[in-house]
Amino acid sequence: MSFERVREALREFVAERDWAQFHSQENLIKSVAIESGELLECVQWGESSEPERVQAELADVLTYCYLLADKMGWDPEQIVLEKLEVTRAKYPVEKAKGRSTKYDQL
Amino acid sequence: MSFERVREALREFVAERDWAQFHSQENLIKSVAIESGELLECVQWGESSEPERVQAELADVLTYCYLLADKMGWDPEQIVLEKLEVTRAKYPVEKAKGRSTKYDQL
Amino acid sequence: MSFERVREALREFVAERDWAQFHSQENLIKSVAIESGELLECVQWGESSEPERVQAELADVLTYCYLLADKMGWDPEQIVLEKLEVTRAKYPVEKAKGRSTKYDQL
Amino acid sequence: MSFERVREALREFVAERDWAQFHSQENLIKSVAIESGELLECVQWGESSEPERVQAELADVLTYCYLLADKMGWDPEQIVLEKLEVTRAKYPVEKAKGRSTKYDQL
Repeated sequence: MSFERVREALREFVAERDWAQFHSQENLIKSVAIESGELLECVQWGESSEPERVQAELADVLTYCYLLADKMGWDPEQIVLEKLEVTRAKYPVEKAKGRSTKYDQL
Repeated sequence: MSFERVREALREFVAERDWAQFHSQENLIKSVAIESGELLECVQWGESSEPERVQAELADVLTYCYLLADKMGWDPEQIVLEKLEVTRAKYPVEKAKGRSTKYDQL
Repeated sequence: MSFERVREALREFVAERDWAQFHSQENLIKSVAIESGELLECVQWGESSEPERVQAELADVLTYCYLLADKMGWDPEQIVLEKLEVTRAKYPVEKAKGRSTKYDQL
Repeated sequence: MSFERVREALREFVAERDWAQFHSQENLIKSVAIESGELLECVQWGESSEPERVQAELADVLTYCYLLADKMGWDPEQIVLEKLEVTRAKYPVEKAKGRSTKYDQL
């Protein structure tokens, strides 16, 4: 599937409801954080045994991420790939292999 | 761009560093929430005037969302479209138009 | 120690820096969430072995909670006790004992 | 009010329900973040006009903060005062007055 199709579906959904007025950069970012909290609730007491619930909450996080990306004119997959290059440099294989240590302590 | 390309890049990145051992469902979900907090920091005192910073933090949130989706065997764009159908039913146009009210109070 | 002493110290700290102008209800709430994300980072890959770091991050969450409570005119300990009564009713001992199930599924 | 009274009420509440088994350091920290997300939802689209709701959500954040502090053997007010001294040093009045800039960019 391509992002363009999701973007069109989201734009239509928002336009039908006249919701763009609520979608400031700041409100979308708060919404990403709120939905991430609901996703986290799935594992509040340990691994979740309800994959449908995790899927629904992850979809909510992604939805607000995509709305924010679209508002800012970014392609989500493109910015992930670009950031991956930065992270590669911060975590060189020979230093980071098999370790979860943060880059500034490697 | 297609998600498959991003997925391959992420898988290679993780495999090179032998990091799959840290990527339990629960740890990935915590990571989504942590990165969402860093994204929120961009607008702590109001709209951000640093789009590059917002972009980098959004990319981090998306990266962990994509790693989680891949671990669970989900296509991120597919689950967003599926959830959108649920949300359409919760927020019918005639009730929700121009209002930010939560569905259970519409 | 009494909350009054902490409240006075926080008020003085804020007044000296002329920071009350940034401390809207909304900005303080965002700040609580941002600091909670930093606290969560302490356990991103499992239990933390750095209690000093956990302590510093928890102190940051509490600081913004206290600033918000003071702004709204609430005593933090009083509102916790009041909410505890609500939670007692939602989770009666005979139903909730030894179970982490959410109240609406008990 | 003193923290000791709140601590006793929380301990009794937890003991009656046999919930200490769920209250690992990590689970309590996740819970702080989850409740912070619910608090943030109060201001998702702007300042909240429902102070009772903000109060209830802030109480939930504080409750988990207090449970964590008690588990770790810390006095919440004491650690806030100690951290305040660190923050004073990071944000000297002459540099920080009237500015919301982060310390590393002052």
